[in-house]
Amino acid sequence: MERTLIKDLFNNPGTGGQEITVCGWVRTVRDSKSIGFIELNDGSSFKNLQIVFDTELENFTEIAKLGVGSSISVTGKVVLTPEARQPLEVHAQTIRVEGASLPTYPLQKKRHTLEYLRTIAHLRPRTNTIGAALRVRSVAAYAIHKFFQERGFVYVHTPIITGSDAEGAGEMFRLTTLDLQNPPRLEDGSIDFSKDFFGKSVNLTVSGQLEGEAMAMAFGQIYTFGPTFRAENSNTPRHAAEFWMIEPEIAFADLNDDMELARDMIKYVLKYVMDNCPDELEFFNKFIDKGLLERLNGVVNSEFDHLTYTEAIKILEKHKDKFEYPVFWGCDLQTEHERFLTEQVCKKPVFVTDYPKEIKAFYMRLNDDGKTVAAMDLLVPGVGEIIGGSQREERLDILSKRIDELGMRKEDYAWYLDLRRFGGTRHCGFGLGFERLIMYITGISNIRDVIPFPRTAGSAEF
Amino acid sequence: MERTLIKDLFNNPGTGGQEITVCGWVRTVRDSKSIGFIELNDGSSFKNLQIVFDTELENFTEIAKLGVGSSISVTGKVVLTPEARQPLEVHAQTIRVEGASLPTYPLQKKRHTLEYLRTIAHLRPRTNTIGAALRVRSVAAYAIHKFFQERGFVYVHTPIITGSDAEGAGEMFRLTTLDLQNPPRLEDGSIDFSKDFFGKSVNLTVSGQLEGEAMAMAFGQIYTFGPTFRAENSNTPRHAAEFWMIEPEIAFADLNDDMELARDMIKYVLKYVMDNCPDELEFFNKFIDKGLLERLNGVVNSEFDHLTYTEAIKILEKHKDKFEYPVFWGCDLQTEHERFLTEQVCKKPVFVTDYPKEIKAFYMRLNDDGKTVAAMDLLVPGVGEIIGGSQREERLDILSKRIDELGMRKEDYAWYLDLRRFGGTRHCGFGLGFERLIMYITGISNIRDVIPFPRTAGSAEF
Repeated sequence: MERTLIKDLFNNPGTGGQEITVCGWVRTVRDSKSIGFIELNDGSSFKNLQIVFDTELENFTEIAKLGVGSSISVTGKVVLTPEARQPLEVHAQTIRVEGASLPTYPLQKKRHTLEYLRTIAHLRPRTNTIGAALRVRSVAAYAIHKFFQERGFVYVHTPIITGSDAEGAGEMFRLTTLDLQNPPRLEDGSIDFSKDFFGKSVNLTVSGQLEGEAMAMAFGQIYTFGPTFRAENSNTPRHAAEFWMIEPEIAFADLNDDMELARDMIKYVLKYVMDNCPDELEFFNKFIDKGLLERLNGVVNSEFDHLTYTEAIKILEKHKDKFEYPVFWGCDLQTEHERFLTEQVCKKPVFVTDYPKEIKAFYMRLNDDGKTVAAMDLLVPGVGEIIGGSQREERLDILSKRIDELGMRKEDYAWYLDLRRFGGTRHCGFGLGFERLIMYITGISNIRDVIPFPRTAGSAEF
Repeated sequence: MERTLIKDLFNNPGTGGQEITVCGWVRTVRDSKSIGFIELNDGSSFKNLQIVFDTELENFTEIAKLGVGSSISVTGKVVLTPEARQPLEVHAQTIRVEGASLPTYPLQKKRHTLEYLRTIAHLRPRTNTIGAALRVRSVAAYAIHKFFQERGFVYVHTPIITGSDAEGAGEMFRLTTLDLQNPPRLEDGSIDFSKDFFGKSVNLTVSGQLEGEAMAMAFGQIYTFGPTFRAENSNTPRHAAEFWMIEPEIAFADLNDDMELARDMIKYVLKYVMDNCPDELEFFNKFIDKGLLERLNGVVNSEFDHLTYTEAIKILEKHKDKFEYPVFWGCDLQTEHERFLTEQVCKKPVFVTDYPKEIKAFYMRLNDDGKTVAAMDLLVPGVGEIIGGSQREERLDILSKRIDELGMRKEDYAWYLDLRRFGGTRHCGFGLGFERLIMYITGISNIRDVIPFPRTAGSAEF
């Protein structure tokens, strides 16, 4: 018999009486002499399915003694229970034990701390919290693909292994196949990377943006969605060494188009997750973050505000006693400043645009004032910055001058400058850290709890 | 005015007469004294749009002289041309030059070899062949997500950075942030990797399968889709150091379920690409691989065959004079053997199952004969193996014994063995190399031409 997913059963309960087979893991078993109840979870749904069994089962005693975490296949009849807390249950005709769970199973029925669960990352997706977080992660990833594909964007896999440092910033991981104990050396004693796998020294990418720009100059609208790496030795709840990033890039477009795209994408993804993971979000709203649903609804339904950096600084300066970090024109905004703007001043998501060029990357388009660049950050309540983007400098002379000013080597950017020589256009894009988005949607405050097997400074287990 | 994509215009041409704006890159310009024609491509479609312009344009002379590759915005009226080769054209009211293209533009109108195009990977997506290949790549990637999500699979991001070697095989890239010139050393002179970023030596993943199994034991049905790495120093048209892989894993399932899933997925993806990239496939069928469409249709419409390895060997032994490599029970199948089976013997896709355990990975489920394992490879005409999968060994004692036999360290697999201790189930999965799939769908014979910026031994440019 075909297996029925518990999610599909709850979504289409039918009229009752049909015979089905469900397979899953036992969350609890309780029994009296002649009847027993199992809470069964198959991972397709947040909800457990109640299985009722009785002494008609040949293996009643075995089933009644099943350990938490055991896997079973149940064939039985669907019974609608409109008066009960759960709309239906299954009365078992046969229950087959697929795999017993030893009494040492670490997920016995009690609350576990998130810290403890990280030590059993191979088992923790079976818990309510991590299971729900990773289902939301999957649905949100699909929503992102759906959003861009429906608009005709081309999905691009930019390289993970790279010889360049896209942002001119960020600590990188070096990749090598050399024998490090005994590396080949040049005459001056330095390591001869021309003998390495790629014939030179290479790193893991920190951003696919520059390559994404090349693709946007062919396809008009592209997006990337892939892993990105930072070797920053910072042990915070918001930083991982390996995380996924979404980076769209659009041609024939300016900063206003960029903000529209970011707004539409965020609203689309939030709405899609709210429509497709209602049980998960209700759980997070109840147990993790009481204001969650209200906040998400707020974002989906509100207009987004817009301040220039210069306006934002003027506002912040009036409240400078509220902040730990000093506020002045030219300073980088700290999370406390960002949250104040979006939570206290605007009370909704807000784009802050036109930052001083000194605090932004070399490729951002210089504004006519000669001091600021066409950058935009999207700030949202509860988090601060969630998206950072910009219009890119498409003017060859200005971009070349900027590269010189910053002491970068123009020959390293020859192909990037080519994009400005051969049919370059106005264009822009942004980056969205996928884990930050999932933290925002779930209310989970540690990035380690929204990644199946997190990689952070000092930790690469499993 | 909103920009219209050329793809959308061809799909919904309307009644003609409507005013629109299109933006794109000039493929050709020709003009007589008073009228000119531009072939415009915006990357959304394989097709070019014909722009007609005349001396009513203020900048007629400038436009007539435009270099190939220049980017322009055109506002004008749609004119239906049912008699002409193209169903419609646009009569320009204004043409704005977004970015001129210098005369040194490498993609002048003539044929370029694929080898040459690889040297200008930042510009080659603007060509017919590479543009079409990367659009197919994007659509196929989406089809894969759509297929699994519609069936309720959870998309899982397994780690890229790993302390383990999943298959016990495959050369790996080492990752480090140590100063290689002057690494910290232990007393015996060896490098002290406990000082490295993760506190130990780590590599880039060769497969997400083991982690995928942990996730399948929570969600029942999962898939991965992410980059994978092999540091094999092989310079062939079919190997890249960085490639993307899809690895589904299903619980409560055996090898028959695995084959069904593989078959359904392949058929779904091929059909989706045929429905959504008809122009691209027609182009490939005409210029790259004349049997392409017939072969793809064959796969979508045929039943798939099934042979055991033992049956396959018996067939191959009868034709042993046809092969370079010897055939005997226990040998690994070479591409020439695989292609013979699917092209000459079965004349359709065929699953070969139940291989000798010695030539397969440690985690594959031992059959009752004690000699073979529940492995399956899918062979398709024109390629040979495109998918490799297996039922996994869920029995703790047999798996432990196999790990011992192979001299592997059980403590390295402690968490993997846990999955067999706590509610383990029958389960299986497979791996599909995404680039191999794109080569198969497009007929392109070199993996470097289906990856935006390929990474191969000796080459990590851009």
